[in-house]
Amino acid sequence: METSRVKPGLNGVEGQKEATQAAGKPLGLVGEALRAFALALTLVAAVVMGLDKQTTTVPFQVVPTLPPLQVAVTAKWSHSSAFKYFVVANALVCIYSALSLLASLLTSARKKNLSLAVPIAIGDLIMVAVLFSTIGASMDFGLLGMHGNSHLRWNKVCNVYGKFCEKAIVAIALSSIGALVFFGLVVLSIISLHKRSK
Amino acid sequence: METSRVKPGLNGVEGQKEATQAAGKPLGLVGEALRAFALALTLVAAVVMGLDKQTTTVPFQVVPTLPPLQVAVTAKWSHSSAFKYFVVANALVCIYSALSLLASLLTSARKKNLSLAVPIAIGDLIMVAVLFSTIGASMDFGLLGMHGNSHLRWNKVCNVYGKFCEKAIVAIALSSIGALVFFGLVVLSIISLHKRSK
Repeated sequence: METSRVKPGLNGVEGQKEATQAAGKPLGLVGEALRAFALALTLVAAVVMGLDKQTTTVPFQVVPTLPPLQVAVTAKWSHSSAFKYFVVANALVCIYSALSLLASLLTSARKKNLSLAVPIAIGDLIMVAVLFSTIGASMDFGLLGMHGNSHLRWNKVCNVYGKFCEKAIVAIALSSIGALVFFGLVVLSIISLHKRSK
Repeated sequence: METSRVKPGLNGVEGQKEATQAAGKPLGLVGEALRAFALALTLVAAVVMGLDKQTTTVPFQVVPTLPPLQVAVTAKWSHSSAFKYFVVANALVCIYSALSLLASLLTSARKKNLSLAVPIAIGDLIMVAVLFSTIGASMDFGLLGMHGNSHLRWNKVCNVYGKFCEKAIVAIALSSIGALVFFGLVVLSIISLHKRSK
């Protein structure tokens, strides 16, 4: 985090230049490492959920006097609105992570006065909103899959699609860590801007 | 929003005092108005959802040759994990809105140097995360209620519990505006802190 401020009387012009560069650069090395981590997390979350599919057989009783037929059934991420939103949201957050990481690295390398601190902090805040909403939706769908809802006569399905549910849990857990990383990035931005304002 | 900064040479001590007060006061009148608005929105959202209940009758076929029996069924917010989380989350956000509004008003009234800008910005950020996650969960549950999920044989229920679903939609819409208000408060904090750091 940059905390450099203009020291009056101590090479004023250079100090001013450094302070302007610091104000433009979004969070430095810690921010870049966190952004790369969030990129990896949301990428893996989107891929794990996007490839989540399980075909299994369930017994189906046609005539009570005969043994049940074994019917093949498939669970797929695209069968749920929540999981579709999850894949799209994590893919978009992953792209944003890459772009914001690139912008941060270019600002560091070129030492130009690009005031990226505010747009990147607001971008990170949008990612917090998007990720928390998709995690909420996916967790609700996951819980219904695990426990069902007896009041609405929605049966649980994770007893049939065990592996599908396990992979979905892994994807949601990864995305949740990604959401916490973006939460941390916004907190760091707030603290960094506050330190500079002192 | 406060943008006052120390003007060197122009009554330095007073200027420093004003700037310190400005840095401690979280967003001024706009912030206080938004906080009061968020308080009202989340309060009404929690109450509308918390009182949401509908009893109706559905036909139930016992014997194929006889006319169906009319059975009373009830939909209630507490039958869903998502809606339970919604009520608790909106109630907590409502309490936070009241406390942060009080803190902001007291800071303004006493003109004390209480540096509340950072803790309140982080508090607002937590509210963004909480509200967006509960809206995601409730919208997923609401969509399943409206359309069902044919792949999992979960039938839609909003054709039976129409009024219940309508009230839930109103509550979710109010809470969504509340979430956007907190999003706006965090954006204002970031911009305000950035202006002071210039």
